Amino acid sequence: MAGNSFGTLFRFTTWGESHGPAIGVVVDGVPPRIPLAESDIQHWLDRRRPGQSRYTTQRREPDEVKILSGVFEGQTTGTPIQLLIENVDQRSKDYRNIADRFRPGHADYTYWKKYGIRDYRGGGRASARETASRVAAGAVARKVLGSTISIRGALVQIGPHTIGRKTWDWTAVEENPFWCPDRKMAARWAEYLDGVRKAGSSAGAVIEIVASGVPAGLGEPVYDKLDGDLASAMMTINAVKGVEIGAGMAAAALSGEENPDEIRIKDGKPVFLSNNAGGILGGISTGQEIVVRFAVKPTSSIPKPMRTIDSEGHEVEIETHGRHDPCVGIRAVPVGEAMMAVVLADHLLRYRAIGGAV
Amino acid sequence: MAGNSFGTLFRFTTWGESHGPAIGVVVDGVPPRIPLAESDIQHWLDRRRPGQSRYTTQRREPDEVKILSGVFEGQTTGTPIQLLIENVDQRSKDYRNIADRFRPGHADYTYWKKYGIRDYRGGGRASARETASRVAAGAVARKVLGSTISIRGALVQIGPHTIGRKTWDWTAVEENPFWCPDRKMAARWAEYLDGVRKAGSSAGAVIEIVASGVPAGLGEPVYDKLDGDLASAMMTINAVKGVEIGAGMAAAALSGEENPDEIRIKDGKPVFLSNNAGGILGGISTGQEIVVRFAVKPTSSIPKPMRTIDSEGHEVEIETHGRHDPCVGIRAVPVGEAMMAVVLADHLLRYRAIGGAV
Amino acid sequence: MAGNSFGTLFRFTTWGESHGPAIGVVVDGVPPRIPLAESDIQHWLDRRRPGQSRYTTQRREPDEVKILSGVFEGQTTGTPIQLLIENVDQRSKDYRNIADRFRPGHADYTYWKKYGIRDYRGGGRASARETASRVAAGAVARKVLGSTISIRGALVQIGPHTIGRKTWDWTAVEENPFWCPDRKMAARWAEYLDGVRKAGSSAGAVIEIVASGVPAGLGEPVYDKLDGDLASAMMTINAVKGVEIGAGMAAAALSGEENPDEIRIKDGKPVFLSNNAGGILGGISTGQEIVVRFAVKPTSSIPKPMRTIDSEGHEVEIETHGRHDPCVGIRAVPVGEAMMAVVLADHLLRYRAIGGAV
Amino acid sequence: MAGNSFGTLFRFTTWGESHGPAIGVVVDGVPPRIPLAESDIQHWLDRRRPGQSRYTTQRREPDEVKILSGVFEGQTTGTPIQLLIENVDQRSKDYRNIADRFRPGHADYTYWKKYGIRDYRGGGRASARETASRVAAGAVARKVLGSTISIRGALVQIGPHTIGRKTWDWTAVEENPFWCPDRKMAARWAEYLDGVRKAGSSAGAVIEIVASGVPAGLGEPVYDKLDGDLASAMMTINAVKGVEIGAGMAAAALSGEENPDEIRIKDGKPVFLSNNAGGILGGISTGQEIVVRFAVKPTSSIPKPMRTIDSEGHEVEIETHGRHDPCVGIRAVPVGEAMMAVVLADHLLRYRAIGGAV
Repeated sequence: MAGNSFGTLFRFTTWGESHGPAIGVVVDGVPPRIPLAESDIQHWLDRRRPGQSRYTTQRREPDEVKILSGVFEGQTTGTPIQLLIENVDQRSKDYRNIADRFRPGHADYTYWKKYGIRDYRGGGRASARETASRVAAGAVARKVLGSTISIRGALVQIGPHTIGRKTWDWTAVEENPFWCPDRKMAARWAEYLDGVRKAGSSAGAVIEIVASGVPAGLGEPVYDKLDGDLASAMMTINAVKGVEIGAGMAAAALSGEENPDEIRIKDGKPVFLSNNAGGILGGISTGQEIVVRFAVKPTSSIPKPMRTIDSEGHEVEIETHGRHDPCVGIRAVPVGEAMMAVVLADHLLRYRAIGGAV
Repeated sequence: MAGNSFGTLFRFTTWGESHGPAIGVVVDGVPPRIPLAESDIQHWLDRRRPGQSRYTTQRREPDEVKILSGVFEGQTTGTPIQLLIENVDQRSKDYRNIADRFRPGHADYTYWKKYGIRDYRGGGRASARETASRVAAGAVARKVLGSTISIRGALVQIGPHTIGRKTWDWTAVEENPFWCPDRKMAARWAEYLDGVRKAGSSAGAVIEIVASGVPAGLGEPVYDKLDGDLASAMMTINAVKGVEIGAGMAAAALSGEENPDEIRIKDGKPVFLSNNAGGILGGISTGQEIVVRFAVKPTSSIPKPMRTIDSEGHEVEIETHGRHDPCVGIRAVPVGEAMMAVVLADHLLRYRAIGGAV
Repeated sequence: MAGNSFGTLFRFTTWGESHGPAIGVVVDGVPPRIPLAESDIQHWLDRRRPGQSRYTTQRREPDEVKILSGVFEGQTTGTPIQLLIENVDQRSKDYRNIADRFRPGHADYTYWKKYGIRDYRGGGRASARETASRVAAGAVARKVLGSTISIRGALVQIGPHTIGRKTWDWTAVEENPFWCPDRKMAARWAEYLDGVRKAGSSAGAVIEIVASGVPAGLGEPVYDKLDGDLASAMMTINAVKGVEIGAGMAAAALSGEENPDEIRIKDGKPVFLSNNAGGILGGISTGQEIVVRFAVKPTSSIPKPMRTIDSEGHEVEIETHGRHDPCVGIRAVPVGEAMMAVVLADHLLRYRAIGGAV
Repeated sequence: MAGNSFGTLFRFTTWGESHGPAIGVVVDGVPPRIPLAESDIQHWLDRRRPGQSRYTTQRREPDEVKILSGVFEGQTTGTPIQLLIENVDQRSKDYRNIADRFRPGHADYTYWKKYGIRDYRGGGRASARETASRVAAGAVARKVLGSTISIRGALVQIGPHTIGRKTWDWTAVEENPFWCPDRKMAARWAEYLDGVRKAGSSAGAVIEIVASGVPAGLGEPVYDKLDGDLASAMMTINAVKGVEIGAGMAAAALSGEENPDEIRIKDGKPVFLSNNAGGILGGISTGQEIVVRFAVKPTSSIPKPMRTIDSEGHEVEIETHGRHDPCVGIRAVPVGEAMMAVVLADHLLRYRAIGGAV
């Protein structure tokens, strides 16, 4: 219970269901005197907003954020910041047919087993709509981190199609609807996803989030390690099934010579010759780029009949129509960035507490 | 700061360094009237203990546990249980040469940057020796879970060599020094690791932990999801770089038809026709087996010169001799089991709090 | 930082300033399937609402609560419940004159020293307006506690005038504007407070909160004791300077024979012959009535000049006009009840987790 | 459950029973590079140690502390510090007669009701022996606070006899066995307590703890207020029934003119003309002395027959012999100081996190 909060010092609590009147987040622990306007948050919400290309759900939500507290004359006051986003385009009737049936791959069955009641409209609390609140919290976290730390995300795989790493181009990320850093692959994904959508299927994806400018020293061994918190942060995003730091699962196949990132001095500063560690050693940031990847499973709602049961225990079939992303992974990029931001903001504040030199 | 605790209701705090007088763990939140003896804990510690085959470090630690509190006349009392393990075979002199040099792949550099001081003897707090405390806590957690929930682990990959899943045999796991469920692969690993050891190299591994008999309903959306907590639990184990639930990273390449686990009724009970979800949907257990995998990088300490710097900022080389596991992943199996146990125990108690029917 | 949450399993977070657009609270950890309507909460808010007699502030706030999440078809769903109360009667201009001056007895100076910025309008976050959110959370907590546990509060002292305990009458509490259980004293207080108000002064008060029907066993030694959590709960209410359990400060003067509450059996059940313990021994409820008292200092805002300084460090005088309660303690009664409710709800859930027999 | 920890950033967990092999505390979140030796801790333990005068229990415990972790070459390393104190003089046979009977005023009955099992030897976990662990944690906290913050305690009341405040003398505190700042009263208490002891009775006490040199700005509104945390800290000490800040319960009888502490400038710094607030406004320290008082009830164990019941529900009588303090309040002075220290250390670290200027 009481599982809707994240963080220790920079701590936020999200609330709201897909088809309730509103969703939102209260962000506590924000240091005072940071300039903050609704537009600062809106900027990031707009990147996650649905309906911006034919590859995302056609639900039309303006996702307009209101600051209800914690900001005075344009600055944070150190008191909790309540951010509210009204739900506008709910169309609850779409979901009547799933009130008693558990959609495979969704949380319908488990919410039912856990709570004995569920708001079935659009997935209720389990809807990816909750991630808008994460993005809002992440926008505040970016303000706490300041301009020296930058956080960027990209899609590196859709279905079986993986980008070429050698041609990685951050500018490309902003130029295609997939946040793809590989222009050629972006074109291929477009074709692939059109096929997926026409076939009434869906596709998974892998997202990579990179934080630059993070000072060495963030992370609290041994249970609040930076990588442990990032793993939790990413794994709690809807539909995520795997999280990797640096070399990730592939680290298992590296040799003892290949894996360790050797260190040299360049311009008077330590430089690592590789980054298999993903910028984290012993749960503490090294000063290198923090690199996290996570896998998002294919959208579970597809317009094809699937075998399931209903709440009475009868075997039934279910077919989910309605407005769904053919690849939910695409919109997970801004969400992953937000979760990186909140983890770093929390650990930056924790680091300050011990009098570190950041 | 204050990062050495894990869990909410079933909550433990570990302490101790590799070469201090002792290590240990205080386990708080254990329900009363559970029979508990030192032998119950020793059983699991013995499985993790070093020096049991030529594939693990030759450090000789009896790892004998003492219960200092929380148990009265053979039963838990509901008060905190302090478990103490003395360090016996410390050989601190082995580590003198690394006092000022940062071993690549280790936490030497980051502890130095974070704290400005470090106990360099055997890695200090960052040593895998800390995992003995996890195993002790896990032994208590198993008692809380009771006999209907069983937790087993296996090694599924060493270096590039992956087991065959079709011949998975849990009885094999107890018959080879690798916890390998594939007898043929166990023989191949033996050969492979002998080569690795002779070459003065090391190898990574992938561990899989499976929990059976877990009731549906465990996990607290949306930030204390069962998979989120498992991801954090496993990622905080030394040398882990990736965590997967069910289909894991491979979920990205599944199609929308393949991925969802369809449901039927068998003998009056819901049965899932596959387990890509790894037993967790929406962060809540489904009643299926919980399946978690994690990757362990190769042991960073190898007897070959590596480029690094010292605490004065000079470029130096370092060669680490001493007693090291050629594949630290092997001993991570009992540790992964323990972390599964503590996560489940915590969520079982949290579930009870809302009046669920477990 | 991040200090705006209370509770472990039943956990709420309040937000909002006196003169912002709204205030509110998100209540997390509420068990599912509890009937809950806005009217259930409104009932308790109405008791705290200002402007109901000439002894409370004349600020006109309807304090109308809206449930924005966590309730579906009239029942809680186990997800977080966001309760929002709009601020209507703000009159910010009243407070312009105190923007740069620190009112003695208020938090103006400390917020300034801590945050370097403060929302001076009506005390901002430090305003007693925040207690409306507590009352809303308390209303939800009462639902969790169910009908067998009843929580009632009374005023037992205003200024120097203390009630007679022998004539305590709970029905009287609802019949006078002071929540006074002693009818004669109520009349005297009316006279006294009229004098205080006319003199441009203010008065303090002592509130007593009594919970009946609380089962034995609630409270978690040794740092989350029931009395420890109650002490924190009450002390964090605006203007509270002391908290007592049972005999309270007077326990110091009792003899070793007088103090312990002896036990007999009546109708097959344990009965204590006195209640100096206030229903708590070793931090755990005994099954007796839980009795807590707290002292509220006199309203600090009075229309008389006081010596203070401004934010530039100059010595100045300040006189606070505007709408203030001559005795803020009066409206603290529903707040104290609410805090008792949230503490008990949290501990009831925590107790269930260990498999207790409540 | 899991109630044996205190603090957020400076966080400690105590463990151990009165008659087990040892007690102790693990202190987490201590900043690195603070010089710390066992003698630093022993100094404060010696002040709490029993058997130092005829007014405290004659149990002979050396209370010798061992540092098992977290300190390297005389300095803290930022890792958890385990402090262990062996129990030496246990005499378990003394307690056999109370195994089935609930001593009035003790936690026997409530532990039984909560846990269904209890370590009856010397009160088990509920014994005041646990406070040695608090004192050890407090000693570490003092190191974190540094030398500019000083914490001192005194006894201000025993039984009905209250000190004269005008003759308060801190040097007197160290010269009598009562920590009494009023030399005349110390003599009177000696006489009074001799009588109490001879009569086989016991006496309560009031303790006052004063912290000087605390910067303005500590405390996190609105639920982690400095006074809220102090109230919880003191109320969780064994036998405490009331906690006051500044004017305390007496604030209720002050007038609106008397209560607020007016502010002037002296030598360029803000000076308050009184301290009814006890150094805390709005839950945040003002820079004045922090003043906390708490009442300790008379020792419940007295050698006189008392009516109670046994675990079978029979009415019985009980008479407690053995070694008991005639006034447990005396030894609560070092404990109260320790709790003040841990609260301040925690809030100092939390304050640093927001970038304050301390």
